[in-house]
Amino acid sequence: MAPFVLPPWIVLDPLLDSWLREDIGRGDRATAGLTGIRTAQWRVKSAGRIAGLDVAARIFQRLNPTVDFVALVPEGADCEAQTIVAEITGSIGDLLTGERSALNLVMRLSGIATATSLYAAQIADLPTQLVDTRKTTPGLRILEKYATTVGGGISHRQGLDDGAMIKDNHIAAAGGIREAVTLVRESLPYPLTIEVEVESIEQLDVAMECGVEIIMLDNMPVPMMEVAVDACRKHAPHIKLEASGNITLETIRAVAETGVDYISTSAPITRSPWLDLSMRMI
Amino acid sequence: MAPFVLPPWIVLDPLLDSWLREDIGRGDRATAGLTGIRTAQWRVKSAGRIAGLDVAARIFQRLNPTVDFVALVPEGADCEAQTIVAEITGSIGDLLTGERSALNLVMRLSGIATATSLYAAQIADLPTQLVDTRKTTPGLRILEKYATTVGGGISHRQGLDDGAMIKDNHIAAAGGIREAVTLVRESLPYPLTIEVEVESIEQLDVAMECGVEIIMLDNMPVPMMEVAVDACRKHAPHIKLEASGNITLETIRAVAETGVDYISTSAPITRSPWLDLSMRMI
Amino acid sequence: MAPFVLPPWIVLDPLLDSWLREDIGRGDRATAGLTGIRTAQWRVKSAGRIAGLDVAARIFQRLNPTVDFVALVPEGADCEAQTIVAEITGSIGDLLTGERSALNLVMRLSGIATATSLYAAQIADLPTQLVDTRKTTPGLRILEKYATTVGGGISHRQGLDDGAMIKDNHIAAAGGIREAVTLVRESLPYPLTIEVEVESIEQLDVAMECGVEIIMLDNMPVPMMEVAVDACRKHAPHIKLEASGNITLETIRAVAETGVDYISTSAPITRSPWLDLSMRMI
Amino acid sequence: MAPFVLPPWIVLDPLLDSWLREDIGRGDRATAGLTGIRTAQWRVKSAGRIAGLDVAARIFQRLNPTVDFVALVPEGADCEAQTIVAEITGSIGDLLTGERSALNLVMRLSGIATATSLYAAQIADLPTQLVDTRKTTPGLRILEKYATTVGGGISHRQGLDDGAMIKDNHIAAAGGIREAVTLVRESLPYPLTIEVEVESIEQLDVAMECGVEIIMLDNMPVPMMEVAVDACRKHAPHIKLEASGNITLETIRAVAETGVDYISTSAPITRSPWLDLSMRMI
Amino acid sequence: MAPFVLPPWIVLDPLLDSWLREDIGRGDRATAGLTGIRTAQWRVKSAGRIAGLDVAARIFQRLNPTVDFVALVPEGADCEAQTIVAEITGSIGDLLTGERSALNLVMRLSGIATATSLYAAQIADLPTQLVDTRKTTPGLRILEKYATTVGGGISHRQGLDDGAMIKDNHIAAAGGIREAVTLVRESLPYPLTIEVEVESIEQLDVAMECGVEIIMLDNMPVPMMEVAVDACRKHAPHIKLEASGNITLETIRAVAETGVDYISTSAPITRSPWLDLSMRMI
Amino acid sequence: MAPFVLPPWIVLDPLLDSWLREDIGRGDRATAGLTGIRTAQWRVKSAGRIAGLDVAARIFQRLNPTVDFVALVPEGADCEAQTIVAEITGSIGDLLTGERSALNLVMRLSGIATATSLYAAQIADLPTQLVDTRKTTPGLRILEKYATTVGGGISHRQGLDDGAMIKDNHIAAAGGIREAVTLVRESLPYPLTIEVEVESIEQLDVAMECGVEIIMLDNMPVPMMEVAVDACRKHAPHIKLEASGNITLETIRAVAETGVDYISTSAPITRSPWLDLSMRMI
Repeated sequence: MAPFVLPPWIVLDPLLDSWLREDIGRGDRATAGLTGIRTAQWRVKSAGRIAGLDVAARIFQRLNPTVDFVALVPEGADCEAQTIVAEITGSIGDLLTGERSALNLVMRLSGIATATSLYAAQIADLPTQLVDTRKTTPGLRILEKYATTVGGGISHRQGLDDGAMIKDNHIAAAGGIREAVTLVRESLPYPLTIEVEVESIEQLDVAMECGVEIIMLDNMPVPMMEVAVDACRKHAPHIKLEASGNITLETIRAVAETGVDYISTSAPITRSPWLDLSMRMI
Repeated sequence: MAPFVLPPWIVLDPLLDSWLREDIGRGDRATAGLTGIRTAQWRVKSAGRIAGLDVAARIFQRLNPTVDFVALVPEGADCEAQTIVAEITGSIGDLLTGERSALNLVMRLSGIATATSLYAAQIADLPTQLVDTRKTTPGLRILEKYATTVGGGISHRQGLDDGAMIKDNHIAAAGGIREAVTLVRESLPYPLTIEVEVESIEQLDVAMECGVEIIMLDNMPVPMMEVAVDACRKHAPHIKLEASGNITLETIRAVAETGVDYISTSAPITRSPWLDLSMRMI
Repeated sequence: MAPFVLPPWIVLDPLLDSWLREDIGRGDRATAGLTGIRTAQWRVKSAGRIAGLDVAARIFQRLNPTVDFVALVPEGADCEAQTIVAEITGSIGDLLTGERSALNLVMRLSGIATATSLYAAQIADLPTQLVDTRKTTPGLRILEKYATTVGGGISHRQGLDDGAMIKDNHIAAAGGIREAVTLVRESLPYPLTIEVEVESIEQLDVAMECGVEIIMLDNMPVPMMEVAVDACRKHAPHIKLEASGNITLETIRAVAETGVDYISTSAPITRSPWLDLSMRMI
Repeated sequence: MAPFVLPPWIVLDPLLDSWLREDIGRGDRATAGLTGIRTAQWRVKSAGRIAGLDVAARIFQRLNPTVDFVALVPEGADCEAQTIVAEITGSIGDLLTGERSALNLVMRLSGIATATSLYAAQIADLPTQLVDTRKTTPGLRILEKYATTVGGGISHRQGLDDGAMIKDNHIAAAGGIREAVTLVRESLPYPLTIEVEVESIEQLDVAMECGVEIIMLDNMPVPMMEVAVDACRKHAPHIKLEASGNITLETIRAVAETGVDYISTSAPITRSPWLDLSMRMI
Repeated sequence: MAPFVLPPWIVLDPLLDSWLREDIGRGDRATAGLTGIRTAQWRVKSAGRIAGLDVAARIFQRLNPTVDFVALVPEGADCEAQTIVAEITGSIGDLLTGERSALNLVMRLSGIATATSLYAAQIADLPTQLVDTRKTTPGLRILEKYATTVGGGISHRQGLDDGAMIKDNHIAAAGGIREAVTLVRESLPYPLTIEVEVESIEQLDVAMECGVEIIMLDNMPVPMMEVAVDACRKHAPHIKLEASGNITLETIRAVAETGVDYISTSAPITRSPWLDLSMRMI
Repeated sequence: MAPFVLPPWIVLDPLLDSWLREDIGRGDRATAGLTGIRTAQWRVKSAGRIAGLDVAARIFQRLNPTVDFVALVPEGADCEAQTIVAEITGSIGDLLTGERSALNLVMRLSGIATATSLYAAQIADLPTQLVDTRKTTPGLRILEKYATTVGGGISHRQGLDDGAMIKDNHIAAAGGIREAVTLVRESLPYPLTIEVEVESIEQLDVAMECGVEIIMLDNMPVPMMEVAVDACRKHAPHIKLEASGNITLETIRAVAETGVDYISTSAPITRSPWLDLSMRMI
């Protein structure tokens, strides 16, 4: 399996620095005068899939390059409760000052990865893939979508600019699917794709004729979705199909069995609890 | 009741701008060519407490100052499902380009406010107050803690610099509570307070002698907590007492009834689902 | 025709501000003491296609919102020498302080648009479209690619992240086209496309089998390109074909007549002189 | 000869970082999964003068400090086509991710240096020096002016603040050369110089009386320029004379032979093609 | 004694970088061509207390990590005139380019530390402590308050957010001390303290009843201050008392003898001359 | 008289914003709940020259554009103690939140302007002009030098880049004045000037021969300075002469009477107390 892919640090470092500054403010009042090199351990407090260890290591490095962060499990590992996932060695002050920023990030990402893995497990034997959405915490888009991949899903577009999604509001404003697609295509960088959201078989037919690359079946009942998949496979086999709307752990498998290529859901990002971890000196 | 208090925009604007840029990237591919002024409505899809409407308005204003965002419910309102909470009028392009950044923020903050309000309701008739922690999403500290207040809690310190919390790791590193407090006090700006985390009555006694301003009773069973409260009220009535550790909706009332001043829990921030809202043109 | 599409100002403003600061440094030494409101005209000094007027207007607004910039020709107009393209009214100091930053930008973008329009004109009656590359001036990517569209081309991907281009170096590193495509597909956000650069019919065959979305025919002689187009239209009609390498005003039409969908060239951006404009008070 | 002088990296790094971020966006989609250390070579594809190698090295270092960039020719070398100018060793991912930002910069600067060297060669045996102008690409001022020096010219002022240039528009606004000079002198930091643009012998006479440090002979025919030089050498020998306007490779020598101290032209920056370079793994 | 406490570099580096950029601008014109490694010495030119050496070292490191800055006296040392306080070894260019930014900072901080130490010496045998105010140079708050601690004082709050100071204007706006305190308490993060400024015994009585943590006796004559201290010690022994207003080297001891806990004065920051230092190569 | 010249706001705004953020931190704890529009007055508490009122107005505007700041005296006015210099109308919260940042700036700048005016008054009837140095508070260079001009001096160069000052350390490193000047001249943008620091008549002679534009007579006794002025006026009348070193209010006139063009001193910036101002609601 390919490793999970983070962007280069030059992209992430400004975020990491801003998080440290957010927490530290004008200085850490509680570490003044503490001295010595210590080692701390990170322990997960309940079972879950770990995500973000490399980012945590980098957070400590941004605080002080001499901190040594050693991950004890691979990224994406499914950990039992009480697993020690990392050992961090450095000055006691650096360990305590960087602790919360680093832990908060890993707890949030691991919560997403854990929830994603539960959804992905439901359809693991089917060709359908689980994808995320643009419902992400402001400021954390890249890393929350990274957690999706650690959880076993793949990412949807990252923003408004690396793909064109034409939704109901766009269609209404343009005066129809055909008009909306035409407007978008005129100014779209050519390698980018167009996805259209459809709510009926009639809309599906129009979308197929427009030559879009992806069609999202939005909130369709499963039987209608089956009709849609059949129609599209017959008339426009190169178009990718994405199902969306009210996906739950209970419903996801039935949706996947319709044969759609992708199922998108925001739930692992918008509804998942953080995975609890704690740090303790050894 | 005093209004909920956001910091001046000059503090928040850089965050808001970064969120818009995160989502927009190099441009919104789907709104090219759409023209006209439209009005959109925001609707909550399940019951909950709304938070962040002023921030959402500002997000649209940062995108284009001509967008007019009208909140239809007051900040902190408990809304039924399907309540329309805001109407936004502006160019169709601005409405669609700003939609997700603004909605994501309000959905996240409202999720926190909603969860917080459930915890706060359990102890509303008692003098004990609910407080948050530093377990917040990296980059969203100020606003997530603001959501705590909308939910009926009050905020703990905002970072490492506006209060000194001496925890187990600090105590171990310093060689004891007394030593840790002494070290901190030497360099602490004088209006700031020191809080010490204690896990036993013995530690409590030391902490009281050290003249700290706040003592956190960490993970104490309720009976031990009752002993602690009694001891502290008798010997050090000016010290504030905070209970922490494994607070749930089921246990919070019993903890409050011990008479502690504050109960801190990260659950409304780390374990709450977002409140779902959607935008539709009218 | 749809209007040319700039990203929202919140994306561009930091660039514009940095340009003003680059030129102004610690202050404009030559405008001290000059007073009064004046109107200036911008005149093109040789024939060409104008691009960037809205950006110029915004540059003056960033310097001082009271400056009034009125474009006298539409964006993308082909202007004769001596055409007055804009009138700008404001305090004499603001006009002179902002002049060079605004002019430099428009001269550069108009130079690109002018050159692009010459290439595009050669193939205007054919379905093939002209596209740009990632050879752009550091810091000006978005706006130089915008100038491509004003010149009559369409944009290729904007960066390393909104499309995957697999070139000779990637293929060599991965051990083959097939291996390279597989590696990329594993972590690619699903709406994004993969383009592979091929230099022979054998490579083309492999690329078609790999299910990529775009194939670039790199530096192929026209006869080989014709073979390639035929093969691809027959076996993989949904794959887009791009021709690249040593495109000149003389050769572009013959390349287009092979039936490729896109011809990419960096020449309008890397080899075009600026369109000269000057400002004078009236 | 003194080495060409770049400002300290602390001045340039923010630019370099912004260029990497511009190209990388949210991540490089094509290098995921590529592993191993490789060496790449940079080859110039046509003859020209190389400029910017140290900056290219720094760009790779900002991406990853472990990349080793070895220049094989000295900065400012006149290279034959196919010369290998640098070897770069690092992880295959870093080489490919940083390639375009680094190459674009060097191609642009080398194009300027090459064009500048052609102009400078025309007057190399005369005391007159070639200088650039403020017509530079927004955001690249410092480095484009650096390329001027690599090309054999010297730089004019860097911005509006390190010298006062009084041009026709300033003169008109102030009501005359004398008035304009007086206004500027009053607030000018005292080590800074004043340059006045004159278009006639009458204006020259006034400028000489005003005690300015530099006079620009703007668009004067060569015979008038000869008169101007004579007059100035006789009456104000400490004033430096700069010729400007419509300088070409054909006309520059005749202008220099009038005896002016400096000839300024924007052509090497606004009209030069980039020097083409390519990178290939070895 | 605990060491003086600076915040982590990640907090300060942006400031340090901005200072270097402020001085360097587009490049150091006077160091071009200078080569070789040299050692420079910093000498204090009059007696005083040195502060900021670690920051100076970091400034040079930000310019070039190879510069080696060796402090020859401990931070906070009281130096005779002509004491050599540091030796700095590095390239001659780096030493000269970084010299002024680093020296300016240390001269300013040492001036504050020196002045502070004079005030602190007046009350060194008394329990009263000297504190600073928010009258600090814009942009230097953290470091000027750090200099206070080097001078022997302790810091007051660092900004508007880590403590609530209710002054005459707040009281007037709220309609009274009681109303002002109530308003503030409602939204105050709970570990933060409230300080109220009082000008009379009547106001003192109200403030004591309001349960504030600190009371500032503003501009009170010493006899009134004695009454105030007595009243507060008797009725509200946990409230800290701060004296403020027209504190001079002559008056400070009498004020301290009233028994107040803290005496605040802006004089060491707003009225102190810089301590002169110079750098010379050896 | 020409007005005092500030750079455009686009240059200063980032500084102003950073000062507000420095003081506000995460929010103003003391203004929560205060409502209503109020007017405040600024009063100088001792006599002095006022500087920075436009900057103060802008600071309030950056906080909230609706604040109305009305200066009641012109910039540079010499005010008696108790003069009301400005009235500011706005929401009570904005007035109190912005108060300290704005006041601190004006107090600092006015302190400099006041001290400068005292030095300037000593030589007001002589042609010699008072100039400042690069000994300025890190981060405040532009504005402290602006205050010099309000005080009646003129500014020296603003940084290392808008003039070349060759000092003893440069001369030693280069191997002599002549060598140092030659090195600098080679890479100097041509409108910039070179100033050389000399300590003896022998050095003066060399400097005159090198064709520098300015010579600084460093720490010369007045009789030696007279010899230097005579020599320079006779042999190199176009060279400007600057006296420097140990200038005091007592010595400045004697130095000016030697006939030097400029006297530079850092004292008004490094040794001046702030001018005290206070704000009160009316």
